[in-house]
Amino acid sequence: MTLRVLGVDPGLTRCGVGVIEVSTTRVPTLVSVHTLRTPADLPLERRLLSIARGLEELIDEFRPDAMAIERVFAQNNVRTVMGTAQVSGLALRAAAEREIPVALHTPSEVKAAVTGYGNADKAQVGQMVARLLRLDEVPKPADAADALALAICHAWRRGSVRAAPAAAAAASSAAGLTPAQRAWRDAEKSVRTPRLGG
Amino acid sequence: MTLRVLGVDPGLTRCGVGVIEVSTTRVPTLVSVHTLRTPADLPLERRLLSIARGLEELIDEFRPDAMAIERVFAQNNVRTVMGTAQVSGLALRAAAEREIPVALHTPSEVKAAVTGYGNADKAQVGQMVARLLRLDEVPKPADAADALALAICHAWRRGSVRAAPAAAAAASSAAGLTPAQRAWRDAEKSVRTPRLGG
Repeated sequence: MTLRVLGVDPGLTRCGVGVIEVSTTRVPTLVSVHTLRTPADLPLERRLLSIARGLEELIDEFRPDAMAIERVFAQNNVRTVMGTAQVSGLALRAAAEREIPVALHTPSEVKAAVTGYGNADKAQVGQMVARLLRLDEVPKPADAADALALAICHAWRRGSVRAAPAAAAAASSAAGLTPAQRAWRDAEKSVRTPRLGG
Repeated sequence: MTLRVLGVDPGLTRCGVGVIEVSTTRVPTLVSVHTLRTPADLPLERRLLSIARGLEELIDEFRPDAMAIERVFAQNNVRTVMGTAQVSGLALRAAAEREIPVALHTPSEVKAAVTGYGNADKAQVGQMVARLLRLDEVPKPADAADALALAICHAWRRGSVRAAPAAAAAASSAAGLTPAQRAWRDAEKSVRTPRLGG
């Protein structure tokens, strides 16, 4: 029994799309990662259509059980926030149209979930995503890594909600670590996880 | 030869959609006006899907030659600006998908076009829309009137661009008045324009 999650880091110039699966052991595995790009000199409406279609193709190809989108705040970078909000609207609509459950997560929720603290920088998020997914390299660009982090964050949060609360609490208490903290601990045991055929 | 324009005043709670036609004499005529509404307790993605579908149905029913959407600024009402931006993204995508030319106009451009000054209040815009379209009543809610004002603004601005510049300048100079100013003058001649069968 696995849960497949598609994460979207919305943007007009680069829109990150990451697909992961988590098993019942909460171990995430990379399924696919993409960056949808549009040139800045294309009219806004063409850029939005291009990203919407690219996103819908990926959703239809990977058929996720759930989607997670980064929550955009009006206080964010004023120059780009409108385009980012518009892309998030297209992603939300695509999810609703396909009846795929969708959630918004804030950047600090995502950072806290994957690195253990909400103020992690982009490099730390990327490194942690690579470790959690047992990748040889940090996914590039940062938008792609962020989309994977969103998907992992969502899978874990959703997994926690689904688990029997008492059992989940006991398990968490027994380990004394969040999944991210356990992952850090494991990651620190070896700088690079050995991979067969990697 | 008429130009049919569909204006969109984007919003999650109320999204105004106004369709007008302008003849070569630049006189605007009401074709249709609608307010798409979604309840605040519906999940965001369902609200966006509902508005997108409503908008697309209206576009496909009225087949406008052009669309005009209110430009949203990050500095606007922070509580609602994200939803407004998301709806504008859906409207822009719908236009691009149908290859309908689309433009964004700022609220002050719209106010200046229909009332003659950019700081007009909602009531003045509504009254002027009613006068320009020879309606017995101001369209309600304000979102509907704003969508019509957007469509009129766009038709006039586009008309100016299309006319031979010298001829347009001469006509404008001969009258000494913008279309809005001429309309005010005409409107003031009689408090209510007589209508047959109204």
